[in-house]
Amino acid sequence: MTQLYNKVALIGLGLIAGSMAKAMRRAGLAGEIVGHARSAETRKTALEIGLVDAVFDTAAEAVKDADLVVLCVPVGVMGSIAQEIAPHLAQDATVSDVGSVKKAIIDAVQPHMPDHVHFIPAHPLAGTEHSGPHAGFADLFNNRWCLFTPLPETDRAYVDRLKQLWSEMGANVEEMDAEHHDLVLAVTSHTPHLIAYTMVGVADDLQRVANKEVIDFSAAGFRDFTRIAASDPTMWRDVFLNNKEATLEILGRFTEELFDLQRAIRRGDGEQLFDHFTRTRAIRRSIIDAGQDTNAPNFGRYPKEGD
Amino acid sequence: MTQLYNKVALIGLGLIAGSMAKAMRRAGLAGEIVGHARSAETRKTALEIGLVDAVFDTAAEAVKDADLVVLCVPVGVMGSIAQEIAPHLAQDATVSDVGSVKKAIIDAVQPHMPDHVHFIPAHPLAGTEHSGPHAGFADLFNNRWCLFTPLPETDRAYVDRLKQLWSEMGANVEEMDAEHHDLVLAVTSHTPHLIAYTMVGVADDLQRVANKEVIDFSAAGFRDFTRIAASDPTMWRDVFLNNKEATLEILGRFTEELFDLQRAIRRGDGEQLFDHFTRTRAIRRSIIDAGQDTNAPNFGRYPKEGD
Ligand SMILES: NC(=O)c1ccc[n+]([C@@H]2O[C@H](COP(=O)([O-])OP(=O)(O)OC[C@H]3O[C@@H](n4cnc5c(N)ncnc54)[C@H](OP(=O)(O)O)[C@@H]3O)[C@@H](O)[C@H]2O)c1
Ligand SMILES: NC(=O)c1ccc[n+]([C@@H]2O[C@H](COP(=O)([O-])OP(=O)(O)OC[C@H]3O[C@@H](n4cnc5c(N)ncnc54)[C@H](OP(=O)(O)O)[C@@H]3O)[C@@H](O)[C@H]2O)c1
Repeated sequence: MTQLYNKVALIGLGLIAGSMAKAMRRAGLAGEIVGHARSAETRKTALEIGLVDAVFDTAAEAVKDADLVVLCVPVGVMGSIAQEIAPHLAQDATVSDVGSVKKAIIDAVQPHMPDHVHFIPAHPLAGTEHSGPHAGFADLFNNRWCLFTPLPETDRAYVDRLKQLWSEMGANVEEMDAEHHDLVLAVTSHTPHLIAYTMVGVADDLQRVANKEVIDFSAAGFRDFTRIAASDPTMWRDVFLNNKEATLEILGRFTEELFDLQRAIRRGDGEQLFDHFTRTRAIRRSIIDAGQDTNAPNFGRYPKEGD
Repeated sequence: MTQLYNKVALIGLGLIAGSMAKAMRRAGLAGEIVGHARSAETRKTALEIGLVDAVFDTAAEAVKDADLVVLCVPVGVMGSIAQEIAPHLAQDATVSDVGSVKKAIIDAVQPHMPDHVHFIPAHPLAGTEHSGPHAGFADLFNNRWCLFTPLPETDRAYVDRLKQLWSEMGANVEEMDAEHHDLVLAVTSHTPHLIAYTMVGVADDLQRVANKEVIDFSAAGFRDFTRIAASDPTMWRDVFLNNKEATLEILGRFTEELFDLQRAIRRGDGEQLFDHFTRTRAIRRSIIDAGQDTNAPNFGRYPKEGD
């Protein structure tokens, strides 16, 4: 039980904020946790379920006297919230965020930050397809990564304390520069999401295949895509609008490779297909060895194997 | 406990055959279950773990006196096995298969079938990314669909008995024509697999993103793709080679839609992205309502939500 911050203000009270609140409580990391969300309904729910100790009608009120402020809102509103809270931030407060892109957030938030606060952008690589104040849980960050993209001039003592917070919430921490972060995430998250959204849209459109069939017969691969494509539309709109270059670059490479495999199918080149499929299998193995996914068949959807 | 067949011969002793054997035993559906697989090693394993009551070195020996023969081998070898077993099939035997495409299998198998047997193609929409004799489990088919694509001239009594078998192994059964099956599966399974294989290949290739980063930071969407792209290379090579037209057609539609969303990102058209992402979310809901996937976040990889 190491209390790292006296008063934490969470702006946005959805999946990530809720999970942070629970993980901080579990480890006794914060003296008090307060928050603000856009709608009265979310604020009411957050208070009722004890997600936070107090809620405020405005972000400006919520950040008062907080030594840690975490922006847990969609990427596209980070800048306006930063502007709103700026005059109300305490001396030496740490301001952080959990947004899924980093360069655009730095560009939007940093100009508003007064000299007496420490802005430290971060991104936990952990989430689910659910959102809202009920979706959070304390284990979300366990053994997941939280990537920091601090600015060079930032006081290291504040970076280290925030890293300790994330470690004690269960995450592994690593630093990289914001542009590199955005490229890595374009590969491991943003492009896969766009592709899943595309495929699910195609299935929905198909005239010759009745909708009910696509749904009933989804167990053979498609349903995994629908989980990804069920993620919050606002969050993902903002991600794509704010990580445009990297996403478009990776999409370009994806299309090239897709056309190559498509040609192999058309030509009946079984060897090329087999070699490609063998190579990708090895990556799965590495991900399991790195502890980043379960080896249980179908992610363990079935109770057990070999019964 | 309704014994439906006296002697079942499984040709191929991997995930699907193993799951069938266990599901048949659980419900007492077969008097005796025997089998054959290509390698001596798989045959030995299958016998040791009690997957079958007896194994044979050739498919021809295995099918002797069997009243049900199920071909559980990759799509590309169905034809040659059909040819090999044909002279050894018992009077009025039912011959079925579990292959992931149907039209190409009918074309490859049917010509070899003697008049005194009943060939009934079928496809259980259930699987995992694992393969081999250890991968099977009795619950695999529970509440999953098994699609039948019988030929019009087939004696209905034999179709009905095979349907009963699949029902008692836990599956829901439905009939459709083979071409329609192949189009539906191109949408719900084959194209999604090709896309996942493509994306994982792109990530593997990327020069600017070190391999370890793609693996460590895979939690955010990409790891779902790697599961799909870890499926057996032989099986999937054969699927694409044998469902070429439908897969290429769906891939064409996929590419169109992808380009459309790509343009929306380039133009910064947040409304189009938001509307698309909202529409796809509804499909997920229908799949969960249809009992074809879990609503647990991340497929229930995390023990529980809201702890
Ligand atoms: N979900 C993931 O997988 C994931 C993973 C890592 C990082 N992230 C990032 O984390 C951030 C939050 O995501 P989340 O999944 O926690 O989202 P969420 O569950 O949808 O919660 C978003 C919260 O932000 C509030 N909000 C939205 N617009 C606002 C505004 N203009 N002013 C004040 N509050 C506002 C919402 O309030 P109302 O409820 O009142 O609308 C809600 O409480 C995003 O930047 C996202 O990129 C998400
Ligand atoms: N996996 C799925 O998700 C899934 C779902 C529905 C339908 N299917 C279909 O089910 C069939 C089997 O798939 P599976 O997942 O059970 O595959 P699997 O676990 O890889 O097993 C395949 C079996 O076929 C045997 N085999 C391969 N080539 C052979 C040959 N020339 N002669 C005799 N035996 C041979 C293998 O023997 P060795 O072990 O000796 O190589 C192995 O026992 C495929 O047609 C597939 O399309 C698969």
